Amino acid sequence: MTYESDAGLLAPGRAGSPAETSTDDRAVLQAMLDAEAALTRAQSACGLAPAEAGRAVTQAADADRFDVRDLALRARSGGNPVIPLVTDLAAAVPEEARPYVHRGATSQDILDTAAMLVASRTLAGVLDDLGRMADELARHAAAHRNTPMAGRTLTQHAVPTTFGLKVAGWRALILDARDRLASVRDSLPAQLGGAAGTLAAFSAFSFEGKNVDGLALVAAYARELGLVEPVLPWHTLRTPVADLAGALAFTAGALGKTAADVLTLSRTEIGEVEEGRLGGSSAMPHKANPVRATLIAAAARRAPGLAATLYGSLAAEDERPAGAWHAEWEPLRDLLRLVGGAARDGAELSAGLRIVPYAMLENLHLTDGLIVSERLAAAFAERIGRARARDVLAGAADRARSETTDLSDVLFDVLDEEPELAGLDLAELTDPARYTGSAGPLTDRALDRR
Amino acid sequence: MTYESDAGLLAPGRAGSPAETSTDDRAVLQAMLDAEAALTRAQSACGLAPAEAGRAVTQAADADRFDVRDLALRARSGGNPVIPLVTDLAAAVPEEARPYVHRGATSQDILDTAAMLVASRTLAGVLDDLGRMADELARHAAAHRNTPMAGRTLTQHAVPTTFGLKVAGWRALILDARDRLASVRDSLPAQLGGAAGTLAAFSAFSFEGKNVDGLALVAAYARELGLVEPVLPWHTLRTPVADLAGALAFTAGALGKTAADVLTLSRTEIGEVEEGRLGGSSAMPHKANPVRATLIAAAARRAPGLAATLYGSLAAEDERPAGAWHAEWEPLRDLLRLVGGAARDGAELSAGLRIVPYAMLENLHLTDGLIVSERLAAAFAERIGRARARDVLAGAADRARSETTDLSDVLFDVLDEEPELAGLDLAELTDPARYTGSAGPLTDRALDRR
Amino acid sequence: MTYESDAGLLAPGRAGSPAETSTDDRAVLQAMLDAEAALTRAQSACGLAPAEAGRAVTQAADADRFDVRDLALRARSGGNPVIPLVTDLAAAVPEEARPYVHRGATSQDILDTAAMLVASRTLAGVLDDLGRMADELARHAAAHRNTPMAGRTLTQHAVPTTFGLKVAGWRALILDARDRLASVRDSLPAQLGGAAGTLAAFSAFSFEGKNVDGLALVAAYARELGLVEPVLPWHTLRTPVADLAGALAFTAGALGKTAADVLTLSRTEIGEVEEGRLGGSSAMPHKANPVRATLIAAAARRAPGLAATLYGSLAAEDERPAGAWHAEWEPLRDLLRLVGGAARDGAELSAGLRIVPYAMLENLHLTDGLIVSERLAAAFAERIGRARARDVLAGAADRARSETTDLSDVLFDVLDEEPELAGLDLAELTDPARYTGSAGPLTDRALDRR
Amino acid sequence: MTYESDAGLLAPGRAGSPAETSTDDRAVLQAMLDAEAALTRAQSACGLAPAEAGRAVTQAADADRFDVRDLALRARSGGNPVIPLVTDLAAAVPEEARPYVHRGATSQDILDTAAMLVASRTLAGVLDDLGRMADELARHAAAHRNTPMAGRTLTQHAVPTTFGLKVAGWRALILDARDRLASVRDSLPAQLGGAAGTLAAFSAFSFEGKNVDGLALVAAYARELGLVEPVLPWHTLRTPVADLAGALAFTAGALGKTAADVLTLSRTEIGEVEEGRLGGSSAMPHKANPVRATLIAAAARRAPGLAATLYGSLAAEDERPAGAWHAEWEPLRDLLRLVGGAARDGAELSAGLRIVPYAMLENLHLTDGLIVSERLAAAFAERIGRARARDVLAGAADRARSETTDLSDVLFDVLDEEPELAGLDLAELTDPARYTGSAGPLTDRALDRR
Repeated sequence: MTYESDAGLLAPGRAGSPAETSTDDRAVLQAMLDAEAALTRAQSACGLAPAEAGRAVTQAADADRFDVRDLALRARSGGNPVIPLVTDLAAAVPEEARPYVHRGATSQDILDTAAMLVASRTLAGVLDDLGRMADELARHAAAHRNTPMAGRTLTQHAVPTTFGLKVAGWRALILDARDRLASVRDSLPAQLGGAAGTLAAFSAFSFEGKNVDGLALVAAYARELGLVEPVLPWHTLRTPVADLAGALAFTAGALGKTAADVLTLSRTEIGEVEEGRLGGSSAMPHKANPVRATLIAAAARRAPGLAATLYGSLAAEDERPAGAWHAEWEPLRDLLRLVGGAARDGAELSAGLRIVPYAMLENLHLTDGLIVSERLAAAFAERIGRARARDVLAGAADRARSETTDLSDVLFDVLDEEPELAGLDLAELTDPARYTGSAGPLTDRALDRR
Repeated sequence: MTYESDAGLLAPGRAGSPAETSTDDRAVLQAMLDAEAALTRAQSACGLAPAEAGRAVTQAADADRFDVRDLALRARSGGNPVIPLVTDLAAAVPEEARPYVHRGATSQDILDTAAMLVASRTLAGVLDDLGRMADELARHAAAHRNTPMAGRTLTQHAVPTTFGLKVAGWRALILDARDRLASVRDSLPAQLGGAAGTLAAFSAFSFEGKNVDGLALVAAYARELGLVEPVLPWHTLRTPVADLAGALAFTAGALGKTAADVLTLSRTEIGEVEEGRLGGSSAMPHKANPVRATLIAAAARRAPGLAATLYGSLAAEDERPAGAWHAEWEPLRDLLRLVGGAARDGAELSAGLRIVPYAMLENLHLTDGLIVSERLAAAFAERIGRARARDVLAGAADRARSETTDLSDVLFDVLDEEPELAGLDLAELTDPARYTGSAGPLTDRALDRR
Repeated sequence: MTYESDAGLLAPGRAGSPAETSTDDRAVLQAMLDAEAALTRAQSACGLAPAEAGRAVTQAADADRFDVRDLALRARSGGNPVIPLVTDLAAAVPEEARPYVHRGATSQDILDTAAMLVASRTLAGVLDDLGRMADELARHAAAHRNTPMAGRTLTQHAVPTTFGLKVAGWRALILDARDRLASVRDSLPAQLGGAAGTLAAFSAFSFEGKNVDGLALVAAYARELGLVEPVLPWHTLRTPVADLAGALAFTAGALGKTAADVLTLSRTEIGEVEEGRLGGSSAMPHKANPVRATLIAAAARRAPGLAATLYGSLAAEDERPAGAWHAEWEPLRDLLRLVGGAARDGAELSAGLRIVPYAMLENLHLTDGLIVSERLAAAFAERIGRARARDVLAGAADRARSETTDLSDVLFDVLDEEPELAGLDLAELTDPARYTGSAGPLTDRALDRR
Repeated sequence: MTYESDAGLLAPGRAGSPAETSTDDRAVLQAMLDAEAALTRAQSACGLAPAEAGRAVTQAADADRFDVRDLALRARSGGNPVIPLVTDLAAAVPEEARPYVHRGATSQDILDTAAMLVASRTLAGVLDDLGRMADELARHAAAHRNTPMAGRTLTQHAVPTTFGLKVAGWRALILDARDRLASVRDSLPAQLGGAAGTLAAFSAFSFEGKNVDGLALVAAYARELGLVEPVLPWHTLRTPVADLAGALAFTAGALGKTAADVLTLSRTEIGEVEEGRLGGSSAMPHKANPVRATLIAAAARRAPGLAATLYGSLAAEDERPAGAWHAEWEPLRDLLRLVGGAARDGAELSAGLRIVPYAMLENLHLTDGLIVSERLAAAFAERIGRARARDVLAGAADRARSETTDLSDVLFDVLDEEPELAGLDLAELTDPARYTGSAGPLTDRALDRR
């Protein structure tokens, strides 16, 4: 039985990405099977099951041998896919191994562990993409350390900045995201607690007269999986999921910052950057859309709502909640996919970005010198006081605007009228490229970070 | 090329539901093709294209003839799936019809229209399920119009109510949801505007010397689709999507109210209702989980965050936004699926619900009569004033609690000590079943609504 | 005791607005008192209390006579402010009236009713502001029905549109918001149910031997308040709150659409509109920030999350939930304030907006004619087929770009090379102002709506 | 001018809490003044201003000397409260110091720094409350290390657990929250960048012929404030705000877990815990509501939506965004308040919690032995195989249910019928208190954490 509810048609942001593959139903199923196999192997290792059982389950635990759609449909009656999977897995192993399939575990042990495996595998790729992106951005930032451009606040030109500093900022956010994701990834725990998190079922079993310490089993299980051994079963202590939520929402937003700036700077009227691989349009042959940035921006809009749902599931009642846990499954996967796709787009965007210093320079002069009014105000204030400096400048700015002339032209007249201002080097003071402050050293400092 | 990113393994709430089928990628693709076909037919009808073109595109517009995964992957370069679809659709029609495929339209015309078709088709089933659920609830409410049970506030027994009134309330919310969804469904518009929403491309075409009025074409297109004719193209006027978001979040919450109560009332300690079809457990053979209510509760937790993303997309810049639109696609589908699945579960839950009046009665006496303390306070207050009545009752309640005896037993002694209270009918005053106020008439009134 | 936790310092969007005043703690307190007074008057009217009691409570029900901070602090022990208020209100009336204060009601009856009164009073002002805004926008749309400007999609120039059509779209969304809010406002119900929503306490009372029908009392109470009589008590049937959430989130988003466009169009590089009342900067004397649009945009970002919380509270267990209800109070008020402030800003912004048709025209030519490539493609396609037309145009566009010359100049050469294209009126075909399609009729149609 | 929009009437969760005081408008104003004073002092320290200027501004920087409402109203024109504050602060210092007020800074430098100060001050109290709560929970967990109770999953009894393990889990989450908040608090940075984040204005100034290194000034400023020196100005690199959002949402959810369990366990029918300080009811004298847990639960419902808004603001365009920044101010404060109030309630709740082991034991027997069916299944399976064990038990369970007798009674009969089961110690196997697995060691291990 095959069924496609979602082949990515509405998800160009993640279609074909490694994150899509590592989070799809087959990958989730494989991770559940990996958890089951690790559990039996751990029991074998602890002397709770024959060695053969661990091998047999491991061999059977191949997602391609199971019917994912059929499992999905049978999951309805008990409310989770582990229940039918255990039936099918037991049927797939030799009879002697059957009693050791899923023994002592609860569905949530398997599904939570699978989620951590899926997260860990997906984040490996995300971290790679963020690393590539950071490298590309470092390259741009270094190359444009001294490329002046308009600093913009509340949509208006404010004072000059450099493209290097801007890109160094993008990179800083991406590194912040990488650090947060890497730290969460390193702490992803296995899940094992049994029906109510007491590990009681494991002590109920004996094998060849031996009993087992539940805690030792948990340790062995985590080792088999390459996940962290948890201090407590975390069926309703959802730190790992909440930490993923936060780090993923952060990453989506960090990528979204780059996208927001690229979208602005590539506006037809601004034209300071262009995505290298241009997005076509179905109607206009000339159209060159910033598609990568658009898809990242879309992911950044969606991630916070998904993370909110996951944070909301922290308040989970009892030893397993009726809804809060079930509400996590798809949003966590959606977040992994969205961020995985956006990280890929971020890496591509950064690699292909075309930067147009000429447009930056041209735009810098759009306000006819007003972009350095802050500097002029400071220089004037030293001579004629803050209040009068402001008045003089405001007057000059109004005049420049109404006469549609450049501020520096008006200022020559002004200097004549204000003897205290005589001798100021207007050429220097009104050159935007010479008013970038500590942009250079800040860029250097930011690029020192690895 | 077939690819399954999601066969429902993590979605028992909607696996196998009509809403899953009517929102899957194939259904979305078919809806896009329906939009394309309607557009060409409308152009044929308006004399903008040969009649044969409309027929040819309609014939080719069969989702099974297209490769959805391939479209998904090719959607990446332009950022939406319509661009590659138009290429493939053009290739699938006879050469003479090719110029009339997608002519004058923009990708968003097709994708928005498809979204409205998918919503309309999905809501038909949702409305059916809500209707069935309301009928089942009406049956329960009528049958239990006079079944007394504990009213609970802030988790504590407050005063008695009836199961009939409670269920009448569930039904009222479901009918509110139905009304909101039905009203939104009746207003779903077609989308047609061309590249910037001016319909300019249509007037750029002529056919056999005839030009067309863009507005007439929109009307014809909407008629072909069975959707409402929009006053304006709504590429960035997202009323239809926001209205869907609100009505769907409302419905998830309305269903969630029933689920929240069922989860509470079916707790092992309360046992006043049971889901008829019980959910098993992988570990405990005796376990009878309220699975339907759990899955509904999970949907209710997820819907608000998805709706928030859609409301956030109202603030969409320009004639087509870079991200806000793209951020709608999956959340809208997710909402439709979640609500579709939850409505199915709601109907099943309501049909199968087992009600245990005996447990209700037993629980009603759990507080040893304290549940009618409000009534006693009122009766006493008429004779000895509010303040003293409260003191007397608090004293009696404390005594009943510390002696673990029934309040009515203590009260017989109290009545001896307070001569003003002599003659009160304690049997009547302390019977919870006789203190249900207007529960009956309220239930009747609520059930009058169709 | 006075205490200011919030005098609006972090809320320039709503500081000093009518919505701030109509939602502040004093206003909420007054609304609670209005509910209490209406309840006693209704009981007087139904013969459940002496006429004098209604008058006495009404007279005492003046917020200025109560200490709001003291009530806030005393609200902690029971978890809501009605409990201490009832004590203080009882103390403020003559002894004979005391038994009739809050008689039979529960805290939620009063607080929910107060919320509806506050919402109703606040929405009156919001509707006014939206009406004013719609009028201003109608004025601009009519004045600029034929003012051509660049249509922009995914940040890039697409094809021309008109400013009139754009503004007509803003207005359409504002009218949609107005209609949704007005409809919700007309349906705001009073709340009255007693401890568990059965109205039982009212039937427990008698006055001069008379008993009362609970439903009649609810009707009288709603009449006194000017609110709708509810079919059922809605303590955990939160349709009114969810409907407010949806309509308010919609309105914030509708206002946000105008703001998003104003922010884009007033960018230094675009300069097509300006806010009339300009926002200064603490650092740059020349800075003219679109402050109104910025504050509206901020409100639009916040509303969805607040609405999500309110939708989440639909799933409220029991007859009064432990948390879901309490989680509504501040978000509902926040939404009313945010939207109230944003509507005021929207009205001011619309009234003061400066439109710069010259900049629109100039920008329209920025792509050197490429903005009409769609039209050219259509015209060429009729003669040389779609595919070749696209190739020819793409070639011309590339050439225009690389030679930084205007597309029309290149096209003259192209026409020489493609004899089938001879005779086309290039002056007409490449004039953006003549390619606005149905923008005019669409604007007219949208403005017909009142 | 004094004005109270919010004295806490709708916020019993935080009314009167330290977090309310440390986040109120006066506290925010003081923090802004602290930032201004630190800036001037830092300039004095760097030789950019006379020493006297730093002292003068510091002396004037007393919130009580400013009119917070007036500032709020004047904030409207420029869109933030720093602009009017600078005017008033300049007026409050001697004329010689005036040029050194706010010199070189931008509004966001001050407001962001103030937000970090407010967060740092508020979190100090929150961390204290979480520490107290963790201590109280450690006490309960140790005392009830071996107190058996029903483990509950999906609302149904599953297998036994202990109250000690449950509380150890609550504490683990609280410690996770504490660690996350403490780590964020230790990294809160000062903000200083000037108009576009280049520190340019500072280099534009000279004092007594000396120029200053912008980076040195930032370091001095951060030192003065006791905040971390940022690598880059973070006007649109919102890591600190997003990290606060995540840690605060986490904390709200962690507290919410305790609350969710307390609400469940204190249900009238369950009665296993009680809040020590009981919440009264306005209508029912006997009512003992879990008010602290209710208010915490409400906070946990609200925090995710607020955090989502803050995560959404990461995608902030330009050097200062038009809306994304403004949208942070109130949600960040709301989160601090909500969490501050909830942490106080959590500490109170934990300190006062009454635990009822007797009720736990009684409930443990509610399912007439079924709660140990997992253990029986394991024991039987060893002898008769998994499948037959399940059948035998299911049969016994059905019989016990239908005969409303205890499972152990039925089992005696069963053992007679199944010779392979002879000799099993039914008394041991069916005692819930002896089936708590590793609950004890897990509790110990969790309590080892400090």
